Amino acid sequence: MSLLEDLSWRYATKKMNGERIPADKLAYILEAARLAPSSSGLQPYKIIVISDPALLAKVKEIAYNQSQITDCSHLLVFAAWDGYSEARITRVFNYILDERGLPHQTMDDYKQTILNLYEPLGTEWQAHHAAKQSYIAFAMAIAAAAEQRIDATPIEGFDTAQLDALLKLTGSGYRSTVLLPLGYRQEEGDWLVKMKKVRTPQADFVTELTLADVAAPADQPLPAASQR
Amino acid sequence: MSLLEDLSWRYATKKMNGERIPADKLAYILEAARLAPSSSGLQPYKIIVISDPALLAKVKEIAYNQSQITDCSHLLVFAAWDGYSEARITRVFNYILDERGLPHQTMDDYKQTILNLYEPLGTEWQAHHAAKQSYIAFAMAIAAAAEQRIDATPIEGFDTAQLDALLKLTGSGYRSTVLLPLGYRQEEGDWLVKMKKVRTPQADFVTELTLADVAAPADQPLPAASQR
Repeated sequence: MSLLEDLSWRYATKKMNGERIPADKLAYILEAARLAPSSSGLQPYKIIVISDPALLAKVKEIAYNQSQITDCSHLLVFAAWDGYSEARITRVFNYILDERGLPHQTMDDYKQTILNLYEPLGTEWQAHHAAKQSYIAFAMAIAAAAEQRIDATPIEGFDTAQLDALLKLTGSGYRSTVLLPLGYRQEEGDWLVKMKKVRTPQADFVTELTLADVAAPADQPLPAASQR
Repeated sequence: MSLLEDLSWRYATKKMNGERIPADKLAYILEAARLAPSSSGLQPYKIIVISDPALLAKVKEIAYNQSQITDCSHLLVFAAWDGYSEARITRVFNYILDERGLPHQTMDDYKQTILNLYEPLGTEWQAHHAAKQSYIAFAMAIAAAAEQRIDATPIEGFDTAQLDALLKLTGSGYRSTVLLPLGYRQEEGDWLVKMKKVRTPQADFVTELTLADVAAPADQPLPAASQR
């Protein structure tokens, strides 16, 4: 199979049947998320895995009662840093440098560059930036699940503050960003499963540009010299 | 091959050799990005493809002169909506409904729910939210390139406002979010290619939680009754 076939197979499963997924497939999906690239390699996120029905029932209440939260096998909660700090960045960079057998000062200049860039943008911007990185890992988990023929539902519809409080993330330096229930579809009762997958047509989605396209105002004719 | 093998193979290529990638592989990568899921299926993003050396040279100047911008085969520029509006959402929903043969009013309630949710959060939050969706497509392009053994470099280091001005995105309703040069590695001169790939250890990356874990304050012993 190929990624394109996997992405064509998957859909945002609206109803799951409660069956458990094999441990090796769960591990595979988590490993794909872990291998995702991130800005400066900081991986400013982590994943909380929930399969305890009692905790899932509480999460469901603050996720608009979406049934997949309790009918899934495992729920992945992605959580990202609520901001960048020298201590957080240093901790990751030192780990990377240790693993590569390089001295800690190797990345000092680069670290300062990042800090100088991020600090004036404020913690709200930083939290969004870290959250964006978690979306790359989230996407890799979605692709991995599809490859393993595990159904999944990307979910943004939940109360972040309430989920952070429930999972004791509040004050931990992490904020929940997205949810991914993993399990198996129950076709009966799933309104989406038989619907056509619709995406923006490739012609609207992709634009090719050259310097000539952007050099002159789009609404003016090219200068006479260029028309020869 | 599998996604895990593909993700292990790839790395943020630091030096490319200028060779062109085949048209079918470029099309494959763009199609993977197009098939990516997005919040409410809105796909609030598009991709600009640049292979014109003259335009790439100008992009390079506003991307810290990173050599991959001009040594790649094709540069993908991801751009996302700068905010949500009823008109933008309606346009996409109507297209989806037309493709599925459903009347336009089918999603009216849902559309109003989204608008009620997004409007009070402001356009800056909305732009971040749309950008996050583009990161899912970005990740699918990264995974697709790796599967096709095309090198790629995820790049956030560029001046967004200057790139938007150069590509005439300013005022278009889109803002550039991330760059992905596609091409082939030139191992000589690439400082990263021989470095160990380092990621947060799985034990730190994944936490499993049950209701019992979050029910009591973490820093207090469990009540005596539970210790029996």
